[in-house]
Amino acid sequence: MISVVIVGTGNVAQNLFQAFDKVADVEIKQVLGRNKNHLAFAKDKVFISTDFKKIPSADIYILAVSDDSIGVVAEKFKDSNGLIVHTSGATSLEVLSKCNRTGIFYPLQTFTKGKIISFDDIPMCIEAKNEKDFELLLNLGKTLSNTVIEVSSEQRKILHVAAVFVNNFTNYMYTIGADICTENNIDFKLLQPLIKETAAKLDDLTPYQSQTGPAKRGDQKTLQKHLQLIKNTHQRELYTLLSNAIKEKHGKEL
Amino acid sequence: MISVVIVGTGNVAQNLFQAFDKVADVEIKQVLGRNKNHLAFAKDKVFISTDFKKIPSADIYILAVSDDSIGVVAEKFKDSNGLIVHTSGATSLEVLSKCNRTGIFYPLQTFTKGKIISFDDIPMCIEAKNEKDFELLLNLGKTLSNTVIEVSSEQRKILHVAAVFVNNFTNYMYTIGADICTENNIDFKLLQPLIKETAAKLDDLTPYQSQTGPAKRGDQKTLQKHLQLIKNTHQRELYTLLSNAIKEKHGKEL
Repeated sequence: MISVVIVGTGNVAQNLFQAFDKVADVEIKQVLGRNKNHLAFAKDKVFISTDFKKIPSADIYILAVSDDSIGVVAEKFKDSNGLIVHTSGATSLEVLSKCNRTGIFYPLQTFTKGKIISFDDIPMCIEAKNEKDFELLLNLGKTLSNTVIEVSSEQRKILHVAAVFVNNFTNYMYTIGADICTENNIDFKLLQPLIKETAAKLDDLTPYQSQTGPAKRGDQKTLQKHLQLIKNTHQRELYTLLSNAIKEKHGKEL
Repeated sequence: MISVVIVGTGNVAQNLFQAFDKVADVEIKQVLGRNKNHLAFAKDKVFISTDFKKIPSADIYILAVSDDSIGVVAEKFKDSNGLIVHTSGATSLEVLSKCNRTGIFYPLQTFTKGKIISFDDIPMCIEAKNEKDFELLLNLGKTLSNTVIEVSSEQRKILHVAAVFVNNFTNYMYTIGADICTENNIDFKLLQPLIKETAAKLDDLTPYQSQTGPAKRGDQKTLQKHLQLIKNTHQRELYTLLSNAIKEKHGKEL
């Protein structure tokens, strides 16, 4: 049995809470947050608290708070003998340096307000200052996910940059697609099967192999037709920039 | 029973062939292509031919050929009394104008070499010069898909532009993510659950609502950290451009 305290009330904290709540080998000792109302998600199931002065003893304290708050929150745990971990992709382990035992417990996934998802397939990227703590995090990770891997702080930060491209920027491409549809009275939902298949193709192919479309074919005629249809300047610039990048990547003339 | 002739040997032709082959109400009279070797996918099941002079009579001739070839191939059907349709998103109905009865049968999906996918959820965008032919295409579409909709040539071209953003450009974001991983000895497969969830979020949210990340939060510190990590000039430029676009979209200071 591993005992944990979850600190935080955001999407990651809520998802971790729901996931650990289903695991027999993990005991959630407490969920801790500054605002009592934001703790409502846990209140029927475990002891919730807004009092950072009375923290129960636990094996692992998971700081699932915003990147900027991790350092400040960690201060409260500087005398603790438990393992203090944060869940951020972009934040170094050093931010916990005032604590005795430290580590990272980073779920490589996007969490959405009000949406609880399964951790089965979420890569849990873990790191710890010492080997025994690493083992502890490994065991904790395995209660949730089939993929628990050691990722150094350096690699984790790079992974977070790559995640921005495949998640944040991809979602921005969806946003432009939706804008184009809305401006032309077309239901954006029509594009959803295409969006899902674009992601699903990566089961079998690399993104390089998956590339299709006029830019990849070097099909100037279609590229020109598209540019004539796009009225919005920002969308046109992006269309040209990304088409040229794809052409270059696939050895087509610019 | 609707009888069809499929013209073409590419991904769309092969997927249409496999899908119609399973439908009791559709008879594939022939698959027609210039290159006999490329017709191998159909040869055990129906009559294949490379002879454009002897085309059997059928209700619908589906020209699933490259955009540039549609006009040339359509010439061969100018005396036919059947309904001649093409499957292209970017090509107008006018390209078939020499034929007597014409229409569009456009599956809004990305098709990959060697991968046969289900048509159940693929929006079939149809259009026809006259109402009776529209009904015929509607019935044909319904044998394959749960979503058959009338889309005008103008709307279809716009939809195709939107598709480039959500499919081609999204896939390019995946490509950069993969490049960043490869350059840093990180397994790109780790990002796959994130990629799939990014697409799946659209079941419940608009892309605007789904947006997360440092740019959306206006988190300058993380944006700066990321830019320091990205060594490749093109990737840096894209990171800045897209982050600024997201910031602007979500009312954050540039």
